[in-house]
Amino acid sequence: MKKIISQATIDRLPLYFRTLRLVEEESINIISSDELGRRLDITPEQIRKDLATFGQFGRKGIGYDVHELKEKIENILGLQNKWRLAIVGVGHLGGALANYVNFASLGFSVAALFDKNKKIVGSEVNNIKVNSIDDIKKIIAKKSVDIGVITVPADEAQNVADLLVAAGVKGIWNFAPTKLTVPPFIPLVNEDLSIGLSALSYHMSQE
Amino acid sequence: MKKIISQATIDRLPLYFRTLRLVEEESINIISSDELGRRLDITPEQIRKDLATFGQFGRKGIGYDVHELKEKIENILGLQNKWRLAIVGVGHLGGALANYVNFASLGFSVAALFDKNKKIVGSEVNNIKVNSIDDIKKIIAKKSVDIGVITVPADEAQNVADLLVAAGVKGIWNFAPTKLTVPPFIPLVNEDLSIGLSALSYHMSQE
Repeated sequence: MKKIISQATIDRLPLYFRTLRLVEEESINIISSDELGRRLDITPEQIRKDLATFGQFGRKGIGYDVHELKEKIENILGLQNKWRLAIVGVGHLGGALANYVNFASLGFSVAALFDKNKKIVGSEVNNIKVNSIDDIKKIIAKKSVDIGVITVPADEAQNVADLLVAAGVKGIWNFAPTKLTVPPFIPLVNEDLSIGLSALSYHMSQE
Repeated sequence: MKKIISQATIDRLPLYFRTLRLVEEESINIISSDELGRRLDITPEQIRKDLATFGQFGRKGIGYDVHELKEKIENILGLQNKWRLAIVGVGHLGGALANYVNFASLGFSVAALFDKNKKIVGSEVNNIKVNSIDDIKKIIAKKSVDIGVITVPADEAQNVADLLVAAGVKGIWNFAPTKLTVPPFIPLVNEDLSIGLSALSYHMSQE
């Protein structure tokens, strides 16, 4: 049986994963929630609560086994799958994502880029060739793409989502400001960059 | 006394705000949590719980006053401040943010761009001139910038944060993958684009 893990906890797991990997590289085998909290700027109580969600790892007064905990989080997040991304829409945002270094640190890689603009098809971004959207089905199969990333304008996004689903992607990450309809077996995450900014505005208004 | 509102609720408020504004434009005065939930793909129970956090709005069996609720959320998030942003680092990500349409829909505007690269200083992105980082103090004062957005590489981010604080910004939104130190009176939100992607990986691994 799968445990239900809250979205907030899921959102903290990549931070834990990255920090544990750095800690492991420092040849540290055991880490306390205090030290993990200090490195992450998260309270030790929050860390113990998050990690308790998926089993007993810490040993009281000793700490967590760094390697064991890192592997467990990697598995929970499914990062061991080394998912391959295709970005559709190589404008400012698509170009930024094609160059975003943090993906690689979690095992993601950008395998393909697509655009409909003939002027950029054939060019390269971060050493990845931009393909024509007309070839999406063929290239997604050839490059074993798992995740489709949508960075086209809102009015083109549903069409792109349909193409990605038809091409066989297993999940969709949508940056277009619109609600997409996809089959229930295709996980969809909508990203909105202004949410973090609104949270900042909230904190700036609490003085 | 200020109520404590959970981060997850704060993150949903901009979605409510934007939807309520659309609803208002359709000349709808009252909306039920069912209808709001349908438009947002959030359960009515979750919406009622979120909105109950900051007072009694809904009338049982009738719904929410659209205008009243929209204004209340705008105030809670501080969006009525119409914050002005300065983006430091006009690479792929900085350029994408300078062009990001969703900011304007929440009242944010990009007032200034900065870079240290002489080749792009003086050019324009989305009709906004790129200034030299050397002029940051003068221009942030002149343009009444409230929020500094950091989109420089990790090893330059702390220096940029220090410059922004010295220039008088009231909050910092950091995209650089590093932990920044800022004075306690300056709210700081760290953005990591790979967190949404990790959540997608998690959902794709739950089959």
